[in-house]
Amino acid sequence: MNLFSGLSAFPITPLSPDGAVLTDDLAGLVGRIEAGGADSVGLLGSTGTYMFIRREERRRAVAAAVGAVSSIPVIAGIGALRTDEAIALARDAADEGAAGLLLAPVSYTPLLEEEVYRHFVAVASATDLPLCIYSNPGTTKFTFSPALVARLAAVPTIAAIKLPLPAGDLPADLAAFREAAPRLSIGYSGDWGCKDALLAGADCWFSVAAGLFPNPASALARAAMSGDRAEADRLDAAFSGLWDLFRAQGGLRIVHEAARIKGLTRAGLPLPLLGIDDELRQRLIAALPE
Amino acid sequence: MNLFSGLSAFPITPLSPDGAVLTDDLAGLVGRIEAGGADSVGLLGSTGTYMFIRREERRRAVAAAVGAVSSIPVIAGIGALRTDEAIALARDAADEGAAGLLLAPVSYTPLLEEEVYRHFVAVASATDLPLCIYSNPGTTKFTFSPALVARLAAVPTIAAIKLPLPAGDLPADLAAFREAAPRLSIGYSGDWGCKDALLAGADCWFSVAAGLFPNPASALARAAMSGDRAEADRLDAAFSGLWDLFRAQGGLRIVHEAARIKGLTRAGLPLPLLGIDDELRQRLIAALPE
Repeated sequence: MNLFSGLSAFPITPLSPDGAVLTDDLAGLVGRIEAGGADSVGLLGSTGTYMFIRREERRRAVAAAVGAVSSIPVIAGIGALRTDEAIALARDAADEGAAGLLLAPVSYTPLLEEEVYRHFVAVASATDLPLCIYSNPGTTKFTFSPALVARLAAVPTIAAIKLPLPAGDLPADLAAFREAAPRLSIGYSGDWGCKDALLAGADCWFSVAAGLFPNPASALARAAMSGDRAEADRLDAAFSGLWDLFRAQGGLRIVHEAARIKGLTRAGLPLPLLGIDDELRQRLIAALPE
Repeated sequence: MNLFSGLSAFPITPLSPDGAVLTDDLAGLVGRIEAGGADSVGLLGSTGTYMFIRREERRRAVAAAVGAVSSIPVIAGIGALRTDEAIALARDAADEGAAGLLLAPVSYTPLLEEEVYRHFVAVASATDLPLCIYSNPGTTKFTFSPALVARLAAVPTIAAIKLPLPAGDLPADLAAFREAAPRLSIGYSGDWGCKDALLAGADCWFSVAAGLFPNPASALARAAMSGDRAEADRLDAAFSGLWDLFRAQGGLRIVHEAARIKGLTRAGLPLPLLGIDDELRQRLIAALPE
């Protein structure tokens, strides 16, 4: 199975208030993901607050996650504002045993297409690990065109792209990227739309919910990947309350609170990010899929 | 004169390829700003690529700039993704002799209003220095409402706000923030619109162009602040080619190339940011106001 296919589960990264990774809590979350049937761990994604974690702590996170799994790969987020930083993070992740890399075009001043292209070539060429392009316009202010993805697909280590749910028709979006880059695995994030993405033939579901609820998310992913729409719809319905919260509030703050509710960590979000209020917390408790 | 009034000139921060501040080049730029008649130095703003510079180098930049001026204050940008980092940067800037602070709500995942509020209270309370709220939706994905600014104006050290040019009517925008926060200095960035902002009664022009062209920018600022519209229009016309380039391309890449054209530094932008192409460089040479 391709590294970037199936269900990739993105855990939070439990942190101390001063930004140290709570490696025991992280190992617990990653172990649950493996036991729950996910196909890979998407460590240090946006939900894993990677941009709030300094280099040496990101390295510790990769080491802890790799040490906590025995049969599934760890994909490590390596995004950074500076190209040299992203390269250093890529090498750290490779040194610590990550199986693949996930790179977003993180920016302060929004990046131009040629800047993103050269950044990706430089970082993807820094290790032998397969790399997934992480398209997340909501955090990076950059939108990947199929034409740019086609250029990047010529880089041997670039193996996949993680796309946001499109505003319009998903099958058309998927077809446009397939045509531009037939060699790449193509997956989606935006949990509420990923059942339909898998049913439409996407290769991977990059899932926030699976980081905490790997069992029902795995069942849902299997049903959708096998084309069993009725079963997928049935399993997706258990998540409908959570999807409503994710759509309205974003997944980040919700899933951190859910991890505390489930007793998996006592860590809070890194400031300035705040937790959710009590009314939302009560809605979340009612919406938990397990 | 209030710290955050008049012409605040924002230099680039010359950097080595690995991110060390070229303090001699920086001191030269800052000395030109003082000699050219600006009222303050806006160090480590967006044009100063502060988010690409690590903490110890930002501290060196503040020390070099403070050492290069004798009669005008240095305002230091202290934005960071983490609240504890921004606090540390604020204290570093105070230790090195900065006269004021400039804080943007830097984000990866876009921040909520309460998160921005608490972040600003925490950072503004960490030193005695007056702090300017830096509203820059293009880089931070956050828009300050007058209501939030009114709340923040109750923090004693919060002294000013740096606003982007509004999409609509500037006098109405200025009036809304004046009413919300009468105690604050209110200034604008977006060089091409700042003549009109000063003529409309804004307190400060936060200027990218003045970082490289302090003499004509100071003359323009004086004319506009004194209400001499005809003279301000005449002086602004010398910048019209530059304003066209800023509007079309953003100021960041243009002004870094202009600094090299003028022989003030050989530094390039931090990767992944790239310089401009030769066609644009020729247009820039033709547009230089001096």
